[in-house]
Amino acid sequence: MSKKRQSTFLANLPGSILLICFLCSFEVQALQVDAAQKALREKFGSEWATQDAAVDKQLRSLTARFERRPNILVILADDIGWGELGSYGGGKLKGAPTPALDQMADEGMRFLSHYTEPSCTPTRVALMTGRHPVRTGLDEVLFPGQVKGLVADEVTLAEVLSEAGYATGMFGKWHLGELQEHQPQYQGFDYAYYNLYNGAIWPWRENATHYDTENDTGITGPPYFIDIPEAYEETFDIPLHGIMRAKRNTPAEEIDPLSLSRFNTFDNELTDEVIAFMRDQHEAGIPFFAYFATNTQQVFSCPDVDSPYLDKSNCQARQLVQHDKNMARLFESLDNMGIDENTLVLWISDNGPMNKFYPSTGFSWLRGYKSEVYEGGVRTPGIAKWPGSIAPGQTPIDIVHVSDWYTTIANLAGAKAAIPDDRVIDGVDQRSLLFNGEGYSRRDYVFFYRYIAYKNLSSTGPASMLSAIRMGDIKFHLQSGEIYNLLRDPVESHPGRREYLWAMQPIRRMIWEHRAMMKKYPNRVIEETAGGKVD
Amino acid sequence: MSKKRQSTFLANLPGSILLICFLCSFEVQALQVDAAQKALREKFGSEWATQDAAVDKQLRSLTARFERRPNILVILADDIGWGELGSYGGGKLKGAPTPALDQMADEGMRFLSHYTEPSCTPTRVALMTGRHPVRTGLDEVLFPGQVKGLVADEVTLAEVLSEAGYATGMFGKWHLGELQEHQPQYQGFDYAYYNLYNGAIWPWRENATHYDTENDTGITGPPYFIDIPEAYEETFDIPLHGIMRAKRNTPAEEIDPLSLSRFNTFDNELTDEVIAFMRDQHEAGIPFFAYFATNTQQVFSCPDVDSPYLDKSNCQARQLVQHDKNMARLFESLDNMGIDENTLVLWISDNGPMNKFYPSTGFSWLRGYKSEVYEGGVRTPGIAKWPGSIAPGQTPIDIVHVSDWYTTIANLAGAKAAIPDDRVIDGVDQRSLLFNGEGYSRRDYVFFYRYIAYKNLSSTGPASMLSAIRMGDIKFHLQSGEIYNLLRDPVESHPGRREYLWAMQPIRRMIWEHRAMMKKYPNRVIEETAGGKVD
Repeated sequence: MSKKRQSTFLANLPGSILLICFLCSFEVQALQVDAAQKALREKFGSEWATQDAAVDKQLRSLTARFERRPNILVILADDIGWGELGSYGGGKLKGAPTPALDQMADEGMRFLSHYTEPSCTPTRVALMTGRHPVRTGLDEVLFPGQVKGLVADEVTLAEVLSEAGYATGMFGKWHLGELQEHQPQYQGFDYAYYNLYNGAIWPWRENATHYDTENDTGITGPPYFIDIPEAYEETFDIPLHGIMRAKRNTPAEEIDPLSLSRFNTFDNELTDEVIAFMRDQHEAGIPFFAYFATNTQQVFSCPDVDSPYLDKSNCQARQLVQHDKNMARLFESLDNMGIDENTLVLWISDNGPMNKFYPSTGFSWLRGYKSEVYEGGVRTPGIAKWPGSIAPGQTPIDIVHVSDWYTTIANLAGAKAAIPDDRVIDGVDQRSLLFNGEGYSRRDYVFFYRYIAYKNLSSTGPASMLSAIRMGDIKFHLQSGEIYNLLRDPVESHPGRREYLWAMQPIRRMIWEHRAMMKKYPNRVIEETAGGKVD
Repeated sequence: MSKKRQSTFLANLPGSILLICFLCSFEVQALQVDAAQKALREKFGSEWATQDAAVDKQLRSLTARFERRPNILVILADDIGWGELGSYGGGKLKGAPTPALDQMADEGMRFLSHYTEPSCTPTRVALMTGRHPVRTGLDEVLFPGQVKGLVADEVTLAEVLSEAGYATGMFGKWHLGELQEHQPQYQGFDYAYYNLYNGAIWPWRENATHYDTENDTGITGPPYFIDIPEAYEETFDIPLHGIMRAKRNTPAEEIDPLSLSRFNTFDNELTDEVIAFMRDQHEAGIPFFAYFATNTQQVFSCPDVDSPYLDKSNCQARQLVQHDKNMARLFESLDNMGIDENTLVLWISDNGPMNKFYPSTGFSWLRGYKSEVYEGGVRTPGIAKWPGSIAPGQTPIDIVHVSDWYTTIANLAGAKAAIPDDRVIDGVDQRSLLFNGEGYSRRDYVFFYRYIAYKNLSSTGPASMLSAIRMGDIKFHLQSGEIYNLLRDPVESHPGRREYLWAMQPIRRMIWEHRAMMKKYPNRVIEETAGGKVD
C-alpha cells in the first residue's frame, strides 16, 4: 500500500529531531478535509490550536509517567441500539442488565449524539479508514463469497498506529472482505484472531430447515424456524471459513470451524485472546492497539448466562448480558495490570438494531433501524473511559462520528503524520472533547450515506446515496424531503414545519460543497467480478 | 359525604386504645379491592403483613423523632412525558435541562413503570380517590362551563388525611369540576390557591385571531395562530374564573383574573404559596399534606427563564426549565426548615405529552400520546424522595399506578381507617416498595381505561372503556387486539407474535373477574344536565 513520503521520512529520523519535526508538522501537513470541516477550521482554528497544545502537554506528561504512549482498546459492538444499555434507558427495563458498561459510563464519557454508518461493513470501513465508506468503494454489507473488500491502498488505523510503534491486534468479526488481501493481518494488524463475516448466516447454513436454538443449546429460547426452498439451497453452498488466526503478512490458519454452538461461547474466547494480547504487550513494554469487534448481537446464539432481571427466554438478552460480563473482564484486566490510566477504552456500536431479527434483536428508543438513516439506524451508544484523562460521569450531547476515532486515536498515538493527505479524511480529531468535555466537539454536522441496492442512482458512482444530513439540530432527509428539529423531536416524528425551512439554504450549500470535494477527490470504484469462491 | 362508621368511632377514642385498635384494624377492616389484587393478597398476604409491621415500626420511630406524622408534598405535573426530564433521557438533549428533578432522582426513587390515567381530569380523580375514574362517574377531561365534577360522596385523600389531623393545602390546577361543591375547599382542603381548569384554553379566549406569544411576552417563540370562525365565537362566551383562594368549606374569593401573561409567572406564585403553607404548618407543629398541581406544560405560556442548554425559542422548554427551578425552591425550603427527613416528596406527571400541541408540548420515548393507552400516554415519570426512609439512587421497574398514592399516603399518615370500605379502592399500599426498594411493589397489573366520546359503548355505563391491560410484561389492547411484550418491546412496535398468545387465557380471566367486581360495586353514573353556567 502507498504511504505518505513524509511519514516514512520522519520514521527514519532520530527521536529528538522527530519530535521537533512532528510539532512543526501541524502546520506543514494539512489533511484533506470536507468543506464543512474546513469552514469550522477557518472559524475556530486558533482556539483549536491552543486546545491541542494543552492536550499535547497532558499527553507528554502521561507518556513520561508510563514511559510509553497510551494504549488503545476499541470495542466495536454489533447492532446494539441507543436504548439497550442501562445507561441509555435499557438494561433491566429491557430484561438485560449491563452493570459493567453502566459503570464504564459512570467512570467516563457517555456520548448522547454518537453516529455511525447505518450498517455493519460501512461502519467498520469508517473506523478503519477515517473516511465515509462511499469514498473507499466499500459501502455495502458483504456476504460470504463476495470478491470485494477493503483495498490495500486504504490506510487503516492499524497501519497508522504501526508507524508509531504500536503493537496491533484484531479480534472478532472482521467483515471487511474475505480474500487474503482483505484480511486483518494484511491490513496493519500484527496479530489477529477472527471470524471473517457476519455470524447471522449460520442458522441458514447449518440447518436449513427448522433450526431451533433449543435443540442446539439446551436452552428454552424462542426457536427460529428457517425453511429454505430446495431450489435455493445451492446459493448457500459456499465453503465458509471458521475461526482464523494469523500473524502480520502471513496467511491465516483456520483453527476451528464455527457453528451455532461455538458462537455461544466465541465472544468469551475472543475476550481471553484480547486480554492475553494486552498482557503480552504490556509485559513487553510496547503500547498496544487492540481492536475487538464482538459478535453479540448479530448472531443467533443463546449463551448460558444468568443475571438478576435477565429475560431468560430471550436469547438476545442473554447475549447482551454475556457481552457485559466480558466487558467486565476486560476492564478488570486493565485494572490488574495497573494500566487503566494509560489506556483509552472506547466502546461503540456499529449501527442500530436489526429490526428483521425481532424478537432476537436489539432496541433503540429512536425511530428507525439498522440500514436506515433515521436516528435509530445511525445514532448509536458510545462510551469512552480513561481514568485521569477523561473526567467521570460526563454525558456530552456533542456530535461525534465513528470516523472521528480514526483521527483522534492517530493523534493520541502521536501518529498524525501517518494519516494520508492525498484523500479526504472525514474523521475529526476529538481529543479536545475527551480531555475538556462537553462543548468541545469539532463537528456540528454529519453526512449520512445509505446503501441502495441499485447502482448509479447517485451521480458519484457507488451504490450508496447521500440520504440525510445533520446540521446542528436540524436533520434533513434528502430522498423524502423530511426535515426535523432533533432537539424538539429526537424521534423524528413531526416532519416539515415551516419554522425549520430556513435550514434548507445552508443545507443546500453543504451539499454543493460536499459534492465539489468529491469531484476533486473522486470516490474509489471497485470493479467487482462475479461473486465467487473464498480465497 | 358519607364516612365509614368505624373511622369516626376510632377518631373519638383516646390515643393508646386507638393505637391498639389501629393495629388490629388490619384484620378487621378489609378494603374492597379488585380481583387481581385479591389474588395477590391471598398469595403474599403473610409476607406483606411482616413487611408492614417493619414499616410501621420505622414510621413510629420517625414520628417519635419529629414529634409528628410525616409531611406529604405531592407535586402533580402536567403533560410531562416519559423522556423529558434529564433522568429519563431528556433534559439537555431536549433543550430543557432539569437539574433539580434529576438531583431529586439521584437522592430518591425514580420509577421506571409508573402509570397514570391517559388524561388530565381522570388522573386527578385517581389520585384524589384511589379509584379508577370510571368508578366515580368522572372519567372525562372537563371543559369550562361543564356542570360535572367530583361528587361529594367520593372520599378524597385530603379528607382522609384531615381525619388523621393533617393540615391540607391545594395549589394550582384543580380540574375536578368548577361548581362550588366540586371545588377543593369543599373536598377536604383547609386552604386552596388555585385555577379551576386547563390553562390551555386561554389563547382561544384571549385572542381568537392571531394570538402570538411574541407580542404577549416579548419572547421570540414560535407564534400560535388561532383563527376561530365567527359562528363559533359564542361557544367561548362563558365567564372564566381566574385565580381562586379559599378556606375550608367557605366560598372562594376570586383574587385576580388569569391571562396568558399571568400564566408566565403563575407557577412561580403558586410555589411561593406552597412554601408559605408548608412553613406555617411546620411552625404550628402540624403535619401537612400539600398538593401542588402545576400548570406547566399544559399552558401556552412562555416564561422568561434562562439556563445552559436551553432551547430558548421553544416555549415548552422554557416552561419545563421554569418548573424545575420552582422544584429547586421547594426542595430548598424543606431543607431550610430541617424537615426533609420527615417529608415524603412525590413528583409525578398526570399523563403523557399532548401531541396536538406540538411543537409546544412535551415528549416521550414511548409510543403514543396523552388520551391514548399506549405506553406514551400512560407510563409517566415519577420520583419519590424521602431522605433516610427512601434509599438514594433507586430506579425500580416495579409497576405503580397513580391510585396507589392514595392508599400509600393514607397508610403513611396513619389514616388507613379513614379509607372507605364500601366501594372498590384500586390504589395499593406501596409503602413497602418505598422502604424496601425494587421488587416490593404490590401489583403486577394495571387496567387502562380510555375516554370514548360516544356513550354506552361499554356495558358498564360511563363513556370510558377498558382499553388495555398490563399483566406482568404483557400488554393487551382490547379494542385492537394488539398484544406486546413490554420487556422486549417497550415502545409497542411489534404486536401479536404467537409466543405471547398464551397470555390471552389469564388476561381473559382478569377481565371477567374485573367485570364481576364492577357488577357487585357498580360504577357511579353522574347524570349531566346540559352544559351551562359557572356557579
